Amino acid sequence: MQYTFFTPGPAALYPTFAQHVHSFLEQQLGSVSHRSQTYRDLHRFTVEQLRTLLNIPDTHQVFFLGSASEAWERILLNCVEHESFHAVNGSFSKKFYQYAQALHKFAHKVEKPLGEGFDATELEVPDYAEVIALTHNETSGGVQMRVSDIHKLKRSHPGKFVAVDMVSSAPYPDLDFKLVDTAFFSVQKAFGLPAGLGVWIVSEKCLEKAQRLRKYDNLTIGAHHDLPTLWKFAQTNETPSTPNVMGIYTLGKVAEDMNRVGVDTIRKETEHKAKLLYKFLEQHDAYAPFVQEARHRSQTVVVANTAQPSAEVIQALKAQGLVVGSGYGDFKASQIRIANFPATSTEQIEALLHALGTL
Amino acid sequence: MQYTFFTPGPAALYPTFAQHVHSFLEQQLGSVSHRSQTYRDLHRFTVEQLRTLLNIPDTHQVFFLGSASEAWERILLNCVEHESFHAVNGSFSKKFYQYAQALHKFAHKVEKPLGEGFDATELEVPDYAEVIALTHNETSGGVQMRVSDIHKLKRSHPGKFVAVDMVSSAPYPDLDFKLVDTAFFSVQKAFGLPAGLGVWIVSEKCLEKAQRLRKYDNLTIGAHHDLPTLWKFAQTNETPSTPNVMGIYTLGKVAEDMNRVGVDTIRKETEHKAKLLYKFLEQHDAYAPFVQEARHRSQTVVVANTAQPSAEVIQALKAQGLVVGSGYGDFKASQIRIANFPATSTEQIEALLHALGTL
Repeated sequence: MQYTFFTPGPAALYPTFAQHVHSFLEQQLGSVSHRSQTYRDLHRFTVEQLRTLLNIPDTHQVFFLGSASEAWERILLNCVEHESFHAVNGSFSKKFYQYAQALHKFAHKVEKPLGEGFDATELEVPDYAEVIALTHNETSGGVQMRVSDIHKLKRSHPGKFVAVDMVSSAPYPDLDFKLVDTAFFSVQKAFGLPAGLGVWIVSEKCLEKAQRLRKYDNLTIGAHHDLPTLWKFAQTNETPSTPNVMGIYTLGKVAEDMNRVGVDTIRKETEHKAKLLYKFLEQHDAYAPFVQEARHRSQTVVVANTAQPSAEVIQALKAQGLVVGSGYGDFKASQIRIANFPATSTEQIEALLHALGTL
Repeated sequence: MQYTFFTPGPAALYPTFAQHVHSFLEQQLGSVSHRSQTYRDLHRFTVEQLRTLLNIPDTHQVFFLGSASEAWERILLNCVEHESFHAVNGSFSKKFYQYAQALHKFAHKVEKPLGEGFDATELEVPDYAEVIALTHNETSGGVQMRVSDIHKLKRSHPGKFVAVDMVSSAPYPDLDFKLVDTAFFSVQKAFGLPAGLGVWIVSEKCLEKAQRLRKYDNLTIGAHHDLPTLWKFAQTNETPSTPNVMGIYTLGKVAEDMNRVGVDTIRKETEHKAKLLYKFLEQHDAYAPFVQEARHRSQTVVVANTAQPSAEVIQALKAQGLVVGSGYGDFKASQIRIANFPATSTEQIEALLHALGTL
């Protein structure tokens, strides 16, 4: 049986993905040197498509890592001398905080339970925090932070770096990179690609800090994928080590497809589909939105409480060829998670809701 | 035009690669959760095929990283408290050494020019070095270290870890993992896969050291892909962050194909093809093997001096659909590099030699 995936990542593949893989193989790009002009053109193409899609200015560079988790470590090593601050409300924001501890940074956090969101006004950022680590979309609890609140935090703390985890929402959030110093995402979420590639967006200001920190005797900015080295190679559309060429190629092609649709249209469609999902959950007795505050509800990963054990819901849907995610951690048995990514059409969401309504 | 690649990585794709990608897509494995039994089975399959192919015992675990370069950093962070020792004779062994410096380890090296190899007897390992970093195959200069010499070094320094870069030779070297504590390779070389995945093989002894170092206040073993966390997840055939599932799947399938041929046969074929290559270079006036000492000549990456500018040779071959690599660094203009990986048949090597002979 061919399934329709509504899982929050790895997720449904973008409809054009297989075709891009085919063209990758046909052009023999898997064998091309990563120090050749063919590769540099491919690399530049992907970066340019991402710049267009996410409105990334020339002050920021785009890097390819092994995963978004790697970006947590690279940000902490390269942009934090002593202290970082983390708004934690789920498993992934917590891991960013734990990475800071593992790297012996003085890590501050403010923590809320899964399913609750943060507003800018309530976040008291410690004076000496160098980075404010925010999660635009907490995949575990289905909570989003409003983009306006992210921007507000930078405006009230212009001397600090704002780092945004947009792993499971990019390209949905319309971040203003004049106010966001660094952000990162994974390709297996809203871009609909197989996992294995993280994208890290970083400002010149971050680079300057890394260059300064590199001179210190008492700390290291890391050896692999340190920011100054990544930046140097990116200048010529290259990477320090042999990159995931197939991932970078297919990302560029899917980003191009998205640019053809237009990011505004993608954002509107995302909101339209999210509206259908939340409306259904509110109206149906057997389900309820997990996130109470409408302003904190994720537009890209919708989490629902289920009246019956969620494993039963998941199994019944699967029998119909529809795959949703289970709840996260303690909520594994009582919730389902539904991805609302660009790869999933309104018709597919409607089919899912119909199935949920008639279980 | 469809080309035949003899480049030292990214290299010719393994003949079955496209078919494995097709089956990956057909099974919708790109959308499967990395916390599902389906993923765990896929992961276990790949690890088991690698264990068979490379004769990896249960004392060692197998991890998937973003690249082999990442393994340099992970080894240094997790297995070295103060001092490492590096045998440097090319660009890649040098980078391992430079990573140690960037991580503020006390890094010792013994250095030889490109094209010269090391014997065990001449290596004086400093007393306090915790890791002996050896490169089985230097891709830049086409030099190999004999496996018996690698084993000898461990026997004479049983208290130190031996770390082996087998990036551009695995599965050719028949390493004895009773004597090799850690080793690593990339998939875009002899495994004939697109780049984007590094494989790191590590012993329990290394894990024990990382666990000990983790408790120290004055150093960090890293946050992303630290050894204890990798090990914990590997126990259940999982990875800490979302892995490159397509890379891991296709690696497992290609390793299975190689196991069907048999690693002994692959090794014999490699040696047979290498013999053809070196014999030709020695006999033909327009070419000469770069590496003088036969015992140090790489079986998997053959480097040749060319009488005419190598760019002309490369271009003339390319016009015939044959792609070889250029020389490395200072030797870019006067050398070519020819990969001799399992994906390349004896017939293809013979066709290349015929073309080289009639230029």
